[in-house]
Amino acid sequence: MTTELGTGIDRRQRSADSELRRRAQAVVPNGMYGHQNMNALPAIPQFIARSRGARLWDVDGNEYVDLMCSWGPVILGHDDPVVEQAAEEQRRRGDCLNGPAPILVELAEELVRTVENADWAMFAKNGTDATTMCCTIARAETKRDLILVAEGAYHGAAPWCTPFPAGVTAADRANLLHYRYNDVDSLRAAVGERAADVAAVIVSPFRHDAGFDQELADPTFARDVRAFCDEIGAALILDDVRAGFRLNHGGSWDALGVYPDLTPWSKAIANGYPLAAVTGTDRYRDAAGGIFVTGSFWMGAVAMAAGLATLGELARRGAVAHMRDVGHQLRSGVLDAASRWGFDVHYTGPAQMPNLLFSNDVDHELSIAFSAEAQARGVYVHPKHNWFVSAATTPDDLDMALTGLEGAFAGLRARHPSTTR
Amino acid sequence: MTTELGTGIDRRQRSADSELRRRAQAVVPNGMYGHQNMNALPAIPQFIARSRGARLWDVDGNEYVDLMCSWGPVILGHDDPVVEQAAEEQRRRGDCLNGPAPILVELAEELVRTVENADWAMFAKNGTDATTMCCTIARAETKRDLILVAEGAYHGAAPWCTPFPAGVTAADRANLLHYRYNDVDSLRAAVGERAADVAAVIVSPFRHDAGFDQELADPTFARDVRAFCDEIGAALILDDVRAGFRLNHGGSWDALGVYPDLTPWSKAIANGYPLAAVTGTDRYRDAAGGIFVTGSFWMGAVAMAAGLATLGELARRGAVAHMRDVGHQLRSGVLDAASRWGFDVHYTGPAQMPNLLFSNDVDHELSIAFSAEAQARGVYVHPKHNWFVSAATTPDDLDMALTGLEGAFAGLRARHPSTTR
Repeated sequence: MTTELGTGIDRRQRSADSELRRRAQAVVPNGMYGHQNMNALPAIPQFIARSRGARLWDVDGNEYVDLMCSWGPVILGHDDPVVEQAAEEQRRRGDCLNGPAPILVELAEELVRTVENADWAMFAKNGTDATTMCCTIARAETKRDLILVAEGAYHGAAPWCTPFPAGVTAADRANLLHYRYNDVDSLRAAVGERAADVAAVIVSPFRHDAGFDQELADPTFARDVRAFCDEIGAALILDDVRAGFRLNHGGSWDALGVYPDLTPWSKAIANGYPLAAVTGTDRYRDAAGGIFVTGSFWMGAVAMAAGLATLGELARRGAVAHMRDVGHQLRSGVLDAASRWGFDVHYTGPAQMPNLLFSNDVDHELSIAFSAEAQARGVYVHPKHNWFVSAATTPDDLDMALTGLEGAFAGLRARHPSTTR
Repeated sequence: MTTELGTGIDRRQRSADSELRRRAQAVVPNGMYGHQNMNALPAIPQFIARSRGARLWDVDGNEYVDLMCSWGPVILGHDDPVVEQAAEEQRRRGDCLNGPAPILVELAEELVRTVENADWAMFAKNGTDATTMCCTIARAETKRDLILVAEGAYHGAAPWCTPFPAGVTAADRANLLHYRYNDVDSLRAAVGERAADVAAVIVSPFRHDAGFDQELADPTFARDVRAFCDEIGAALILDDVRAGFRLNHGGSWDALGVYPDLTPWSKAIANGYPLAAVTGTDRYRDAAGGIFVTGSFWMGAVAMAAGLATLGELARRGAVAHMRDVGHQLRSGVLDAASRWGFDVHYTGPAQMPNLLFSNDVDHELSIAFSAEAQARGVYVHPKHNWFVSAATTPDDLDMALTGLEGAFAGLRARHPSTTR
């Protein structure tokens, strides 16, 4: 793609990436799967060689400033020295053991201190583990089956929640009802006469469905959902897997004064180490203790040590405020550049997790081309999924990002001279 | 418990463990969950401080020879230098990145070389991820819903398969039919007139239901299951999560000449690093490429580097033969000691993954007491779940295990003078 631009930028080498894609085709179905397959656009490098701070390098040696943060997990920056040292110290003692290491208790205590409405914590590996556990706990406590999910919302990739239905049975979804985000009337309508069968409402802190404009939670909606759950005796599950610890050091709806009963966490909780958690209130403690969930690596002590260090460093460094500040500068820069080059863009969501789409962009053609232009200029962004800002972003990183994104709009304009504002 | 024995063994200190259990009760439902809760017997230390080779130390400094291997994952021994070096080299480059590292392709290629019937591989984090993915792939390929599961078999801890039903809905199990292990007639009977609706039969390489005698697969049963799947056009899923790479360097039914269509792997695949995999045949490649499964940490490159090193070292060291040999010596020693002390025991399953139960043992009272006696003598075994032998077991380790287990039978006899053979 970059070879056709004629905008003076270097042609980036991609031969090592192409060769790995070719080999992957032979031994991995489709060459890649899941959200990494969403990444398999020719202009985005598939294979990554190394990373540090807010920078990463693909297998052809091209350098990028990172605005995806490994799709969320990297929050203090890649290879953070404090997190790595904590992980290394635990690793010397042991990781996957016959039982938990003491770090499990320390991390659970820290989460209970950090998360306003958390009376207890449990740990797992995937965000999907955590969202599924919340549903199971809610069902165990309420003795009800139904879960209310917002249309189009992403809560994981198990059969009950995966966004693409191949291999999913009707029974996997039989206990779901759907409402519209930010529309409490749709919640009441979805429930109808079945209020006494509802175990939980699951909701994201903001609407972050990939490929669509993001939408912040209306504070009234958040309060109404909480009141509705209390009214019908259902659990409120706030799915903080994607946004957790980036919007707030604690629950993402704390600023709205709305506290869930159960919260699934993952992604940023351990700066890239594989960890998920569920926190909950005392009402759900016995139910949580009564379900059987487990995994061979769920007691992995290294990820927990990384998690404890991550939570500590996020607080100590004032990471949320820094990410918000960087995000605001990024937003201003992107909106100015888009305007200068005459593009009508939708830059939505919280500053730390923005999503950039283009008006009247059939099949995301413009956003894909923009992303290619950005990648060619050393800015790693995604054409459909929200971006993520890390706390490691320096003024230099931000400059490199804004310069590259300005260039990307310029390059896009050169290729699409007729696109209207 | 050990304080009541009066058999001359040291009273083991457990104060640090007790204190951690007390703290855990405050911040973790029940103090612990999942299979680690099965471990929460007073005589078994809950919290582990460190480990090396075939030894581990609890938080009170007590040393054990390890016959649980972290419930399976540790196969080359704790803290294996070759695996740790491979992991460390990848860690220096990067772990959780914006896309996979090249190690993904190398590991997939190695699995395809190693596993006889594997044409492709995919990676995940939990054994449950892998078993669930196999069901989803089978359903996507066959366009059928039903999965046949052996009664009492463990295939993970998601709602469709968790052995304890709290929080599970009827819909979660609506597409399961049940057969009896080693009984192909029960398979035909379970299917009845619904052969055209069966997506897959899932089966363990041997029957290893916790709390029960283990049962090896009857070779005729294995061949008949394969033939039955072919006859009705269903996938054969061999659940090698627990046994994989311990019974054979490749599929666990290779010795029987029976090859599945889809195989979930996890536990021992990366010597304790969190990794799961699915391998499959070309017939299921398109379906595998068409389902949407993913996780934030599924591309984690460090676990893949550990996996590649583990597979290489298992082959290079002839690990399966060594584990089998150690297992045979363990079996002989245990059976001799049981006989000497007059206990009628059931020591079942493959030599590398034995299970020790006692005849007429109501509520596992004897096996729990035996396990406590063994722990008190520095042998880490489980009273209900199968044990695991690692390739790190030295003659000294085996001596320590056999001496401790002999002492455990002696201690049990002192407490239960009247138990008949």
